[in-house]
Amino acid sequence: MLKLDFHPAGRHFLQIPGPSPVPDRILRAMSYPTIDHRGPEFGALGLKVLDGIKKIFKTSQPVVIYPASGTGAWEAALCNTLSAGDTVLMYETGHFATLWKKMAENLGLKPEFLGLPGVEGWRRGVQADLIEARLRADTNHVIKAVCVVHNETSTGVTSDIAAVRRAIDAAGHPALLMVDTISGLASADYRHDEWGVDVTVSGSQKGLMLPPGISFNAISPKAMKAHESAKLPRAFWDWADIVEMNKQGYWPYTPNTNLLYGLHESLEMILGEGLDNVFARHQRLAAACRAAVTAWGLEIQCADPAVYSPVLTGVIMPEGVDADAVRKLIYEHFDMSLGTGLGKVKGRMFRIGHLGECNDLTLMATLSGCEMGLKLAGVPLKSSGVTAAMEYLTSHVAKPSLKAAA
Amino acid sequence: MLKLDFHPAGRHFLQIPGPSPVPDRILRAMSYPTIDHRGPEFGALGLKVLDGIKKIFKTSQPVVIYPASGTGAWEAALCNTLSAGDTVLMYETGHFATLWKKMAENLGLKPEFLGLPGVEGWRRGVQADLIEARLRADTNHVIKAVCVVHNETSTGVTSDIAAVRRAIDAAGHPALLMVDTISGLASADYRHDEWGVDVTVSGSQKGLMLPPGISFNAISPKAMKAHESAKLPRAFWDWADIVEMNKQGYWPYTPNTNLLYGLHESLEMILGEGLDNVFARHQRLAAACRAAVTAWGLEIQCADPAVYSPVLTGVIMPEGVDADAVRKLIYEHFDMSLGTGLGKVKGRMFRIGHLGECNDLTLMATLSGCEMGLKLAGVPLKSSGVTAAMEYLTSHVAKPSLKAAA
Amino acid sequence: MLKLDFHPAGRHFLQIPGPSPVPDRILRAMSYPTIDHRGPEFGALGLKVLDGIKKIFKTSQPVVIYPASGTGAWEAALCNTLSAGDTVLMYETGHFATLWKKMAENLGLKPEFLGLPGVEGWRRGVQADLIEARLRADTNHVIKAVCVVHNETSTGVTSDIAAVRRAIDAAGHPALLMVDTISGLASADYRHDEWGVDVTVSGSQKGLMLPPGISFNAISPKAMKAHESAKLPRAFWDWADIVEMNKQGYWPYTPNTNLLYGLHESLEMILGEGLDNVFARHQRLAAACRAAVTAWGLEIQCADPAVYSPVLTGVIMPEGVDADAVRKLIYEHFDMSLGTGLGKVKGRMFRIGHLGECNDLTLMATLSGCEMGLKLAGVPLKSSGVTAAMEYLTSHVAKPSLKAAA
Amino acid sequence: MLKLDFHPAGRHFLQIPGPSPVPDRILRAMSYPTIDHRGPEFGALGLKVLDGIKKIFKTSQPVVIYPASGTGAWEAALCNTLSAGDTVLMYETGHFATLWKKMAENLGLKPEFLGLPGVEGWRRGVQADLIEARLRADTNHVIKAVCVVHNETSTGVTSDIAAVRRAIDAAGHPALLMVDTISGLASADYRHDEWGVDVTVSGSQKGLMLPPGISFNAISPKAMKAHESAKLPRAFWDWADIVEMNKQGYWPYTPNTNLLYGLHESLEMILGEGLDNVFARHQRLAAACRAAVTAWGLEIQCADPAVYSPVLTGVIMPEGVDADAVRKLIYEHFDMSLGTGLGKVKGRMFRIGHLGECNDLTLMATLSGCEMGLKLAGVPLKSSGVTAAMEYLTSHVAKPSLKAAA
Repeated sequence: MLKLDFHPAGRHFLQIPGPSPVPDRILRAMSYPTIDHRGPEFGALGLKVLDGIKKIFKTSQPVVIYPASGTGAWEAALCNTLSAGDTVLMYETGHFATLWKKMAENLGLKPEFLGLPGVEGWRRGVQADLIEARLRADTNHVIKAVCVVHNETSTGVTSDIAAVRRAIDAAGHPALLMVDTISGLASADYRHDEWGVDVTVSGSQKGLMLPPGISFNAISPKAMKAHESAKLPRAFWDWADIVEMNKQGYWPYTPNTNLLYGLHESLEMILGEGLDNVFARHQRLAAACRAAVTAWGLEIQCADPAVYSPVLTGVIMPEGVDADAVRKLIYEHFDMSLGTGLGKVKGRMFRIGHLGECNDLTLMATLSGCEMGLKLAGVPLKSSGVTAAMEYLTSHVAKPSLKAAA
Repeated sequence: MLKLDFHPAGRHFLQIPGPSPVPDRILRAMSYPTIDHRGPEFGALGLKVLDGIKKIFKTSQPVVIYPASGTGAWEAALCNTLSAGDTVLMYETGHFATLWKKMAENLGLKPEFLGLPGVEGWRRGVQADLIEARLRADTNHVIKAVCVVHNETSTGVTSDIAAVRRAIDAAGHPALLMVDTISGLASADYRHDEWGVDVTVSGSQKGLMLPPGISFNAISPKAMKAHESAKLPRAFWDWADIVEMNKQGYWPYTPNTNLLYGLHESLEMILGEGLDNVFARHQRLAAACRAAVTAWGLEIQCADPAVYSPVLTGVIMPEGVDADAVRKLIYEHFDMSLGTGLGKVKGRMFRIGHLGECNDLTLMATLSGCEMGLKLAGVPLKSSGVTAAMEYLTSHVAKPSLKAAA
Repeated sequence: MLKLDFHPAGRHFLQIPGPSPVPDRILRAMSYPTIDHRGPEFGALGLKVLDGIKKIFKTSQPVVIYPASGTGAWEAALCNTLSAGDTVLMYETGHFATLWKKMAENLGLKPEFLGLPGVEGWRRGVQADLIEARLRADTNHVIKAVCVVHNETSTGVTSDIAAVRRAIDAAGHPALLMVDTISGLASADYRHDEWGVDVTVSGSQKGLMLPPGISFNAISPKAMKAHESAKLPRAFWDWADIVEMNKQGYWPYTPNTNLLYGLHESLEMILGEGLDNVFARHQRLAAACRAAVTAWGLEIQCADPAVYSPVLTGVIMPEGVDADAVRKLIYEHFDMSLGTGLGKVKGRMFRIGHLGECNDLTLMATLSGCEMGLKLAGVPLKSSGVTAAMEYLTSHVAKPSLKAAA
Repeated sequence: MLKLDFHPAGRHFLQIPGPSPVPDRILRAMSYPTIDHRGPEFGALGLKVLDGIKKIFKTSQPVVIYPASGTGAWEAALCNTLSAGDTVLMYETGHFATLWKKMAENLGLKPEFLGLPGVEGWRRGVQADLIEARLRADTNHVIKAVCVVHNETSTGVTSDIAAVRRAIDAAGHPALLMVDTISGLASADYRHDEWGVDVTVSGSQKGLMLPPGISFNAISPKAMKAHESAKLPRAFWDWADIVEMNKQGYWPYTPNTNLLYGLHESLEMILGEGLDNVFARHQRLAAACRAAVTAWGLEIQCADPAVYSPVLTGVIMPEGVDADAVRKLIYEHFDMSLGTGLGKVKGRMFRIGHLGECNDLTLMATLSGCEMGLKLAGVPLKSSGVTAAMEYLTSHVAKPSLKAAA
């Protein structure tokens, strides 16, 4: 048996913004023996998860499930709809937007990278007016797609996708709208159909509370039409055969069976709780987390309250404090993993994940670990964030979901 | 699959003083397929756990493992050493001492119940001088055994067993010393041999971090000698055949195989951490918990700092507050289970378990849940216990047990 | 993690007559985290399993579930209904009947042991006429209970309990009828109420497909009445408090929570398949097994076809062959565990378990292992038992329970 | 919990040539909680599995592990080494070779498909002389790569890769040698370095006994050099960043953490048993399986004894028998999954998997199920294959791997 078990006594707190903690129910479901992916049981399973996942994306269109982790779903979105040399308009919300742009380049596309200058763009959401202006200028419709990140995992900013849709429509531009909500799905409200998204990209290891290993493309009819003329080479990622075989609950090649067991369980949990309840829970915990950061006198990475992420909160360190040294201290003393600062904000901030399998007491444990760690690291704090978070939670009481026996 | 899964999202906090949370490692170990309890693999397993458990009791004498929960081990201790009508001196530390006394009566023994009057006895440890005085008075040696509870689970008091031994010796009395450390073992320091205990009774679902279902008798040579002349009927509980067959790693009747897998894992974890480190961790967390209770301005059930329990802390409610109503509110709002007040203190206090699979952040989550629940219940609090506990933990830093990568 | 994993590649075949192989579904259910046995979830679980287990015993009376393995339930049956010095009429069907009798002696009862002489009694079921004759002779009603084993695990004989009931009634004798169906329950038809049994004793690790660790007493009103006047000391085993608290789904002391999760799953599986279907499956597999033994030219331990066990088959070795040497060879070469001969038949026979989680192909694997092992051991075989068993199974086709996709 | 549990009682026999049955040990290892893939524990795990997997490929060169199922690793091999329009020489051993060729076309390569005419090519291994002749004719070195399947899963033929290497060398041709051993790895002897393979493609769900979801490219220095000039677009599959980050045990994007836990366990099991022992076990079981098919009087799909597969055996049905109807009957009556005939041999044959977690008794169960199913389907059988297989196994006794207690 794997000897990762060198932890001190007690449970590790995995408070990075994904992979999020996998609930026991899901780990147990995933330990069901692997079955024949061509047998009748598998078809029943396939149909069930393919139907359920549509509800999570709020779509009635096909959602392709890849036996590959999230980065693959980025590639799939691009290579199923575009041809070598195509121009795509991408928006720099942070590190992951930057990585997606780099991938576009590697695949032979021509990404244009839009955004506010400097670090400022990493503290705000997508500026839809910039997109509209750029599209209006593109009178020849050279731009084939607009690519934005819904929940930027590197910063804790959740952009307004409906506004991007309105911008494209206002410009009267035919570009596809592609959205990465890898870390947003099932934590932040998301509406593939209503918002007119053409391809939505997501993954398993965030709001779905699964281990990494499967990823998604939700596909509009317009995107499916673009697929016909798109010329980037593709085989593993090709939508056509998958969508066709999915009608019977099967896949053209070997699917990731045990993660599909986990997805089945995840869907039962999320749809059982109710998507809106899930979103409200995330919003409430995120607000309590921000109350703590504010009480500490520290700055939140997201500078625009309208686009605070319900998934994670970025915490900026005072000048002269190395955020990674603080994280390291917290890991070593309190057995908690926090997210590092990425790219432009490396060493300047850390990220607290409060997504998926998270509740009031897990959040309080997390904030206590941060507060004690900050104190041990010598970071001056204005007041107790833990106290502020408890204040928030007790003055915004959630409907009790458990009923003790009389 | 069992549908106990009606919990809201996130992990339940099981902070009763046992059953304590079972670590994933142990649950996984217990899911190993059941094997032939007469086969060679089983013998190897049996020898290993029988050897390891001795280290936990700090004994070189036999430790019998019953495929039965803890109450059975109480019965085993009595019926293996005593005869109908025998007088036993038992000490009232709280509810569990009272239950053991009641069992002695049911088995046809004559227990004498010693203790301080009223509720006072439930707030202090065993008064060894009372025992000594009583034994000195028993010049005919009518008393056959002295029975005390090491860690009284109903109150959070950990009595001084060495002092009881000294009292018996000072009285020059031949009575057996029997000790219940069901909730103390592997959390509070315990020394079967050094303290001259004749029978130590314990169970699986506390410091050993296992589910309930196995229990223990550690047996001194003197107790084994008493077994020869003891006349209470016994079969399932009889030590003789078990001790004999244990020499090869087997049991005379079917053992609880999967719990023995769990015990094997538990021993690896506890002995891996080091018994002294385990004890120090419990002491530190208990101290932080008491710092919180004190900061709230509430009273601790244990009134004598010398015998504070490292396992649990009893919290007395102000006059007029129903402790069970507070517990119920905390359960419903924060998905945390706390221990109820038992017997004489029913409704007057609740109990916080901080044993076994517990660390700094789990304790902070627990105290946060208590503080928020007390607040919602309208209990006036002097100051933030959570803040006080963090203050304690950061000023009593444990040696970091993890080393982050450079 | 436990290193029992020194097996060669592939699955171990555990074909002893209990513990039987625990299905993955049950192992997974048992890995659900331990909960508060005083909390509301537990009460719901308790009520559910207490209700379900009655269906398995075919009773509407209370069934007590002990957090102890099966031997304890033997003791419970005796000490709840009898007093020191009481005479009990016990019937020698084999090794386990003998052990139960020995226990009765240890508890201070006076067992009379009835049976056919020599090894012959170990090859036939309970002779109800002998019981009737003895009871008729007991005009003073000195005999307080008649104790018989339903499915004798040491021989593979399933006695006719209804006939025993008729014998007692015919004799007009008031003795209690106590039946051990530890290895029969949920594999062989059993009817606690219809057969007028007063106490039925059973365990978890056979037809219920659970690990060992819980056991049962089903209790008639007459037995419950006897409990009032019975004088054997009892505490852990006492029915009164348990039956009372069970009404709310709880237990007076800590139950074996994780095994109750397993029991819940087991009940879902068995009642889902249908008890009658379960019995028919066992009968069919047992008949195929006997077809194999007969084809080999070996003798079946049970000499009376009317009482062949559906649970296990005892296979007698030819003169001069050490059955345990054959078992050892099979274990070493084919990674299969078979049951040893016990007591009077030690070394003369081995036992094949075909109970619980068993189907056609598992049985064929088992018989193949036996046939190859017998061959390697040099035991002369008349013909292929494996071929005979296949012949039986294909000429007694079970209704297909699976439906492949079109 | 997933309700796939509509099986009749007893264990399903998954005897397709992959996914192969996942051992309990591996399922348990995979249920370890997901950790931070940027944390120190992960790095230690990464280094360990990256080192171990090299031993399985018998290489000292990098092995890339993709968080994607096997088809992806085919694509990776091609797009990392080739450019649009490149000619590749592929060899038609069966259905999977055909699928790989189709993928090459989809990616814009020009595959030439070599092979014996008709179904004949599907009954024999790669004819190295045909490859040599074709390469000799390619004086301009238009052919950039030779692609062959080591163990053709659709037929049960294991080609001689060393002979292909010799053919390329004899022709003095610079083409890369790429080999798919998705279903051969860890079951059939394979030597990446010794045989001079440039890219070896494999997957998790066969000999490694894991669920599907990770796949592999073992890479020679020559292939790594080709990577520099290869022009097919690539991002997710690109070797460069992965190989670089693997040096520290990490991946550039989120790896499939829980499957890596499983891989860790798999490596412990396989290397613990010893690779050569694993291969010998597969050879012995495959020979026993073929003995059965021959005894039945049925034809084996592989017509050349020199290239019989140790992984699976294809069984050809007599004229007029629909192989899939037989498979369906076996599935419905005996709860066993067999492999269907694919492509050119659809309906003409079925496939028996005997790989990975397989031992003597599992094979005997499998063959019994086949024999009973064939009989029920009315297929005339010459003699008992089950008897023949037992004859083979008992006359080719493996060294006992277990030692029973004295």
